[in-house]
Amino acid sequence: MTATGLLADIETVGRDPRRGGYSRHGFDRVELELREWFVAEAQRRDLAVRCDRNGNLWAWWGEPGADAVVTGSHLDSVPGGGAFDGPLGVVTALAAVDSLRDSGFTPTKPLAIVVFAEEEGGRFGVPCLGSRLLSGAIDADTARRLHDPDGVTFAEAVAEAGLDPTRLGRDDDALSSIGRFVELHVEQGRGLVDLGAPVGVASSILAHGRWRFRFAGEGNHAGATLLGDRRDPMVPAAEAVLAARIAASEVDDARATVGRLVPNPGGTNVIASTVDVWLDARAGDDARTRGVVDRITAMATDAATREGCELTVTEESYGDTVHFDARLRDELAGALGGVPALPTGAGHDAGILAAHVPTAMLFVRNPTGVSHAPAEFAEAADCEAGVAALATVLGHLAG
Amino acid sequence: MTATGLLADIETVGRDPRRGGYSRHGFDRVELELREWFVAEAQRRDLAVRCDRNGNLWAWWGEPGADAVVTGSHLDSVPGGGAFDGPLGVVTALAAVDSLRDSGFTPTKPLAIVVFAEEEGGRFGVPCLGSRLLSGAIDADTARRLHDPDGVTFAEAVAEAGLDPTRLGRDDDALSSIGRFVELHVEQGRGLVDLGAPVGVASSILAHGRWRFRFAGEGNHAGATLLGDRRDPMVPAAEAVLAARIAASEVDDARATVGRLVPNPGGTNVIASTVDVWLDARAGDDARTRGVVDRITAMATDAATREGCELTVTEESYGDTVHFDARLRDELAGALGGVPALPTGAGHDAGILAAHVPTAMLFVRNPTGVSHAPAEFAEAADCEAGVAALATVLGHLAG
Repeated sequence: MTATGLLADIETVGRDPRRGGYSRHGFDRVELELREWFVAEAQRRDLAVRCDRNGNLWAWWGEPGADAVVTGSHLDSVPGGGAFDGPLGVVTALAAVDSLRDSGFTPTKPLAIVVFAEEEGGRFGVPCLGSRLLSGAIDADTARRLHDPDGVTFAEAVAEAGLDPTRLGRDDDALSSIGRFVELHVEQGRGLVDLGAPVGVASSILAHGRWRFRFAGEGNHAGATLLGDRRDPMVPAAEAVLAARIAASEVDDARATVGRLVPNPGGTNVIASTVDVWLDARAGDDARTRGVVDRITAMATDAATREGCELTVTEESYGDTVHFDARLRDELAGALGGVPALPTGAGHDAGILAAHVPTAMLFVRNPTGVSHAPAEFAEAADCEAGVAALATVLGHLAG
Repeated sequence: MTATGLLADIETVGRDPRRGGYSRHGFDRVELELREWFVAEAQRRDLAVRCDRNGNLWAWWGEPGADAVVTGSHLDSVPGGGAFDGPLGVVTALAAVDSLRDSGFTPTKPLAIVVFAEEEGGRFGVPCLGSRLLSGAIDADTARRLHDPDGVTFAEAVAEAGLDPTRLGRDDDALSSIGRFVELHVEQGRGLVDLGAPVGVASSILAHGRWRFRFAGEGNHAGATLLGDRRDPMVPAAEAVLAARIAASEVDDARATVGRLVPNPGGTNVIASTVDVWLDARAGDDARTRGVVDRITAMATDAATREGCELTVTEESYGDTVHFDARLRDELAGALGGVPALPTGAGHDAGILAAHVPTAMLFVRNPTGVSHAPAEFAEAADCEAGVAALATVLGHLAG
């Protein structure tokens, strides 16, 4: 089975008619359907599937055990996301297993495909939630209390999916079984296009985090309230959006984005009482990332004060810069005939695991560089080049 | 029955646990429940209830006919609105009928209480939809095509409620039956507080309208997309919010507000592909209102161009300044012992009807001036003063 054939199997699952693209979120109806599909595909290949305590799915080729070679990615998406971010790493893993078997390969180490839960944080707000829980990067109590926009807690959602929410949390058995982790992902930029290469390896991930800025003012009538009587939180919220652009532009390689902004109550003829602004900020290292966020916070605080509003800033997630294991990176680049290494601004479960086990990533060329959008794309030939590269890497590591 | 007693009957209907206050929108489950309650209250008073072609409810004291004295308001709310805006005009009408009957009054003209549909435009976007349809201020085809955030059209919603959507539109029979229209409303400002009066009459309503600004850019990854590669519609959307404040502050008495802003797809780690910004703008006359909107449009267009985004501006509703019938206003103020007259920035069904029939409004004191928010309030004694004033006015006009 080809990677694109496998993607075609799920191309109708979770389409979002309003936003375009796909909306597939951790433990929602759609993601559960994709999990069932993955389990069936794994079982069709005689891989033994188990779900760990944190809701991550594992499909084992060979007896589960220590020093395993693990690959995989996730099946959830951002709201209105593309078809490749996540699923490409899962379908290329299945196709690479097929390819290795067809070539007569038998692994001498355990080999597993993993599907991590809620990687995008599109439902509960914290990205890489499954890998953070597994590795202890997020506290189980904190995770249990996370809730989606409808108020459903993460604990309730995993219970609904048949898991025991009291057993969430760091999973040393799972973590210690991983000898090497390799995640294949569509590139989220045009690095490989510029280099003329279908496949590359990752060198690093920017430090990045998410902060919620809550501006609180006074809800009132949009027509009857004089300008001078207003404490309208939308005004400093708008200034925060512009502050993000200003602050990021002052620091090399930094990015700061507001993609989600929710006024409450959200009526056209109503001055909002509160506005929530989610800031996504990233830069080359911890100090620069913190510096950007501090600068935005200072400008937003000043704007809030001028409007008579209160500002509360909450860090919802944070991850320092990831430098992938240099030896593994060079070893894999060499096994692939010298493919290029390139950094990324996007976060991944591989970035979480890199703190614990030697970890690498393979990127597949993205002709437009667009990601987290319906236009996200990779050519079929490049996807199959990804399968071949992943099969080579897995054979190299597990042989 | 007192006005506050009647309000207490419906105090649990349509509470919004997420936003606070009430969310009661035209023809939704909650507003239909309120309509049933109104029909029962009217029938309990032997008032003959009928629903007109546009979904407005009429409860008649005496045979329906020409030169009727009509009072009433609406039962829908803004999202997360207060308990008084709308319902106070309905419950004081019911209580005023009780009071007139208790005093032995018999009207010599037909008298009716009307409940207008979708006054706030909280579901379908156009305020005063029921009175606009009745009076022909909105075309029936345009109204049928309006849709709520879930994509349900107004035609579908009224059909679901048992109306024939092909019969929507100007209703000359209903319109010509109205001899005088008087709407009682909680004041949406502190005019009566400053004047020390529990009740007043309205002099005018600002010109006002709603415009949707749609900024279209390019959806992409919030971490992987360099600042220079972005066409992020959230940036000009934020500039439009600030432009609204600037433009309104340059014109006496003008107000411009963004209370509703929706990025699509709305993910934290996603550069939006489009952002919709709803502008509510009002000023003393048509020229000044148009001037404010033109100035905001110019600044927003410039901001969109700088970010490589497209801007489309759509006028969703508009109403010119209303000067209530001066003779009727003075006649009623006199009948009430010389209560003050004051202008308002808030729109009302009375403002729509004023173009067709002599129309007046009574305001009831609001101790904080807050409206369109859970904190909206009127003291019980002031509500009963409103009942007494409305009974006096109805007795004066229909006696």
